[in-house]
This record gives sequence, C-alpha cells and structure tokens, in this order.
Amino acid sequence: MRVYLDNNSTTMVDPQVKEAMDPFICEMYGDAHALHGYARESKQPLQDAMERIYATLNASHDDSIVITSGATESNNWVLMSIYFEYILTGQKNHILLSEVEHPSILATAKFIESKGVRVTYLPVNSEGIIEAHTVRDFITPKTALVSIMWANHESGAIFPIEDIAYVCEQKRVLFHTDATQAIGKLPISIKDTSIDFLSFSAHTFHGPKGVGGLYMRKDKELSPLMRGGGEMDGYRSGTLNVPSIVGMGKAMELAFDAMGFEMEDARELRDAFEEALLEIPKSAVVTPKEKRTPNTLLIAFEGLHSEAILWDLNQAGVAAKTNAEKSAIQFALSRFTTEKEIEYTIEVVKKAVERLRGVSGL
Amino acid sequence: MRVYLDNNSTTMVDPQVKEAMDPFICEMYGDAHALHGYARESKQPLQDAMERIYATLNASHDDSIVITSGATESNNWVLMSIYFEYILTGQKNHILLSEVEHPSILATAKFIESKGVRVTYLPVNSEGIIEAHTVRDFITPKTALVSIMWANHESGAIFPIEDIAYVCEQKRVLFHTDATQAIGKLPISIKDTSIDFLSFSAHTFHGPKGVGGLYMRKDKELSPLMRGGGEMDGYRSGTLNVPSIVGMGKAMELAFDAMGFEMEDARELRDAFEEALLEIPKSAVVTPKEKRTPNTLLIAFEGLHSEAILWDLNQAGVAAKTNAEKSAIQFALSRFTTEKEIEYTIEVVKKAVERLRGVSGL
Repeated sequence: MRVYLDNNSTTMVDPQVKEAMDPFICEMYGDAHALHGYARESKQPLQDAMERIYATLNASHDDSIVITSGATESNNWVLMSIYFEYILTGQKNHILLSEVEHPSILATAKFIESKGVRVTYLPVNSEGIIEAHTVRDFITPKTALVSIMWANHESGAIFPIEDIAYVCEQKRVLFHTDATQAIGKLPISIKDTSIDFLSFSAHTFHGPKGVGGLYMRKDKELSPLMRGGGEMDGYRSGTLNVPSIVGMGKAMELAFDAMGFEMEDARELRDAFEEALLEIPKSAVVTPKEKRTPNTLLIAFEGLHSEAILWDLNQAGVAAKTNAEKSAIQFALSRFTTEKEIEYTIEVVKKAVERLRGVSGL
Repeated sequence: MRVYLDNNSTTMVDPQVKEAMDPFICEMYGDAHALHGYARESKQPLQDAMERIYATLNASHDDSIVITSGATESNNWVLMSIYFEYILTGQKNHILLSEVEHPSILATAKFIESKGVRVTYLPVNSEGIIEAHTVRDFITPKTALVSIMWANHESGAIFPIEDIAYVCEQKRVLFHTDATQAIGKLPISIKDTSIDFLSFSAHTFHGPKGVGGLYMRKDKELSPLMRGGGEMDGYRSGTLNVPSIVGMGKAMELAFDAMGFEMEDARELRDAFEEALLEIPKSAVVTPKEKRTPNTLLIAFEGLHSEAILWDLNQAGVAAKTNAEKSAIQFALSRFTTEKEIEYTIEVVKKAVERLRGVSGL
C-alpha cells in the first residue's frame, strides 16, 4: 500500500483541476494580453478564474489579487518591496516576524537584515502560537511591516490572524500573512479582516505547482518584484500562465467547497489517527488539535530520532516528513486521504516505534 | 481558416511535451526535495530534464542552469542581483543595454536607474542590430554589466552575441543575454562563447508557460532573487515545478532537434511569405532576412496604420501583432505553420492592404 501524508509540502492536482487546465495547453494557448482571436478565447476563462479567486477569498474588487509563481515569490515580493519603499527611503527600519515563518520569509528577512533592516523574530508560546498582544508589544514607531503566517506548515498551529491584523491596523503598521497552509483548510473572508497582504500557492490546495498569488488591499499596493510587459495591472509582469491560473481558480473553488465536508472528514480521520498514535507510550503533540489546521498532526516519540521512524515509514510506502528540528514526525492529510490508508499507517507507525525502541533498548 | 502567427509572443505546447508532463500532475506529484517514495519517483525524470537542457544548450556541468518562472524573472534577477552585488556596494555604477531589449530588461533598468544606477541604452543601426565594437566603445571602468538580447522579439534581428560576449570578457565586464527569441531558432553552444548569464522561457519554444531558466557561468554566480527553502542549490527557492521542468526539457530537446529540419521548413515558408508580401507596393522590411531569426517577418506598408491591418487580419482569423511603434506588422511562424496557412494569409494581407489603401485613397 502507498499512502501520501505530505500534503503540507505539496498535493496531488485534483483531476477536475487538470481537466479544467487541459484545453489551455495545446488549444487555447494564445497570449491573453494580445488582441487576436487566439487571445480572446482565453480571456473569459481567465476572468472567470480570477472571479473565483476573489469570491472564495471574499476579497473586495477594489483590492488587487496578483498572480505570482507561488507563495515563495509572494513572500519575497512583500519583504523586498517594503525594503525598497519604506526602509531604503529612511521612513522605517524595522520588521516583525514570527520565528516559525516559512523559509521564504525568514531567508528574505535575513537578506534585508544584512542591508541594515532591524528584524524581530517573535517566539511562539508553549502551544506553538503567537498572541496578538505579543505582536502589539513589539511594534515600534519604526516598524514598517508585521508578517505572521496564518497557519504553520509543520505544526499546523493556527495563529490569531484577525486579531493580529486588527492590532496592526490600530498601530498603523502594514500586516502581511502567508496563508499557504490556511487556504482550503480554514474559512477565510478577507473583507472581514484588516489584512493588507496575503500570500498563497495553488499546489497546497490540489492546484498546479508554479502558480500562486498575493492579495493587496486597496491603497496598500506594493511596487513590483517583477517588472516588464505590465501584465497584472503592472504589479507582476510575465506572460500570463493561463492554464495554471484557470487551474488555481478551479482548485480554490473546490477546496473551499470541500471545507465543510471532505475537509471535515479529513479532520475526523486526523483526530482518530492522533488518538491511536497517542496510545503509543511517551508520544506527544504540542499544539492542541482545536488550535491546528484540520489535516495536520505533528507528533514526537520520546527517545526516537524522527528520521529513523521516517525510514521505516518509507519502507512501508508511507510518505510523511520530519520537522526542521528532526524531533517529530509530521503527517498531513488531504481530502483524498482514506480511512483504509490511515488504518494502515497507524499499524506502520506502531510497528516502527516498537521496532526502534526495541533496537535502542528503550 | 484560423492561422496563428504570433509565435514570438507564445507558442502552442507541443503535444509530445504535454504527454511528457501529464504523469507529474495527478500521479507523481510529490515534492522532489522530500525523502519519501513520492519524491524519489520524480527525481530521475527531473534529472533527465535538466540533463536535456544542459545538453541542448551545450553548457558545462560546472556551470549552473537555474529554473525560474520564465525569462521575465530571469531578466529581473540578473539586473537586481547586479544592482545589489556590484552597484549598491559601490564597486560599479553603470550598465549597458540595447534600446530594443524586452520590457522586462528595460523596466528593471528604469527601476535601478531611479536608485542611482547609470544606464546607457545603445541605439540599433539601420539594420536593427548593434555591433560588438559599438558595445566596446561604451564600456567604462564603472560598467558592471552589459545585457543585449540574442534576437529581437519584434524584428527578429540577430545580434552578434558571441562577438559581444568576447568584447565583454576582454573588458572584464559581465555579459548577459536574453535568449528568449533565440532558443530553438538559432544554434546555441554556450561552451563556445564567453556568455556569463543567459535567460530563456519555455513557452516560446512549444513548452509550457510559467517556466524558464537562467544559465550562470561558474564563478559568476548571482545572489538569488527568490530566497527560501534552498531549492536549485539555493539560487532559486520555491517548490520545484516538476511537470513544467520535465516539459521544458522535452520542449528544448524537440526544438533543437527540429532546428535543422522543421525550422528550416519554417524559414523557407517565411521567405516565400516575405517575397509575396514585398510584391505589395510600398512595403518594406528593415532587417535583412539573413540577419533575422528564421521564423520572423516584420513588415511595414507605407501610409497604413498597422492596427488597421491587424483588424482585417483578425476578422479573417489570422493572429499577428504590431510592433511597439505600430508602424509594422509582425508575423512569427513556428515549426507547426503550414504552407496552406501562409498561402491563405498572403491573400488576407493583400486584400487588407488593398481595402485600406482604397479607403484612405492612397
């Protein structure tokens, strides 16, 4: 049996998404910005896809959703633009992040830190979360941006983004959230928040790789990271990747539609999975499950190196991951994960832990 | 009849390319950087694709070919990295471009110009070309980079890139070429040149949109534009877009294989097309056809606005383009263009010019 439980890294493209993309590869392939018939035929599907993205995120049409090559680009873009617009100009000198941001935030922060920007990395609390009041305490008059992820890719911990956004609005500081792990897992209604910028990647919600986006609130526009032909209202140049944008629109719609149903089934499966694994002696999770994305389980087995467990899982056909510290195993389900797969994985993990503890004499 | 002659903007994905990509969408979708079985199964195809790209460009394995979201990203990357590494550090203050570069070069140059960089825009000669000695004359001790495209997207004019690269090497100035319009149209053997950086986009040679690359000569590495998870040896982060990289590898191989055959057929078709259109009174081309990419024809009809001609072409189902100055019509063929399509287009253009000159009383 093969079981894929690495869905926070990337997901299978939903076959319905592939079907939606297919006609734009060898048939309707024209440059959507051109004026001829081959361009016109892709304009409506492109517009429909953008419409779906606005609708599922519940974003106002006054705001901008700009298509990028994925959340890594969106995250780099926000930080670099803040650097050029607010910091290099001398207005501000500080940004505020969580210490558990995705590497695309942390590495870009390190880069601008080397150019003189002051960066504060907020630690998470014992549940792996940062509270809004902690963010408020660290904002200074020189803070240009707060960037906190909506949910963590390893632990699944959900951050109180609406509250943090509100604090930033009150303090008149720009707020960005990397929502890569939230889309399709948590209800999002941008209109009802004070979020200024929001990043996402299609490939984490059963869309294609190599495409994502950045939401920008009206009057909070960033200067572009990619300049050129002026596509995407000049915010992101490059020939429009029509099949991928169409695919992302479809994937986002399907993911949001599935949230009340298949994703709730995934949550039930995850909960049962977690309960079964916590029966293993000296096993522990950090973030309580009601404060986590519904698909994620990060679990540690005392005395065992997580890479050793991963090896046994691999041998048994189960795809999972370790966290960065190699202290725990991460299982990330999807709406395609089945009960049978989880039953099988429970057996595999139990056997692996037993075997390894036997070997190490624990 | 429908005829697609806008192949310098973007091309149809070769059905063989689509076929190569398909298994990596809903089946072998794992993160190629992970350690589990779903990752391993895409590693070999990924490596094969990279191998094909190195082989078709005849690049040394000591050098780096880094996958990007396309030439717009590659072009932005080169200029921004030069800005950060050589100009912001105070070592150099000047870059040298042709005035006819792609907007992704020109717009990025404008941006760094606004940050204090001195930019020289070299004019093209009467044939739409820049000679190596002209480049040499404008290099100063403060020049950090020369960036000249291999072939122009509008005129198809081929620049003497090997000579220009040699001049830059002699002058110890970094040299970048945007080869977007050259790949699959001109023989390229990077090993035999002094090129330091070379940009390309798959979608101009019947590969997928949203993927491209940047070649970097050994010891001439750039700092990344996109930071994060450290994919592509740290030069370009972001989850690897396996299907698109596999597609680009296949597309590049097919394009190079076709160069001696189908592309030569396209050249013959283009030449016959050109001859027929030049029979129309007061028509003219600028760059002589032996100095142009084999698929491109940029032709002006005296007294006529090119957008008016385009309108008639559109009505007849022919997709073409105007140049930026709206003074000429650009037809860009591909290896899929047929004799019948060109015969039809000749009739359509002749009728359009006749009709419009009749209307305007010329």
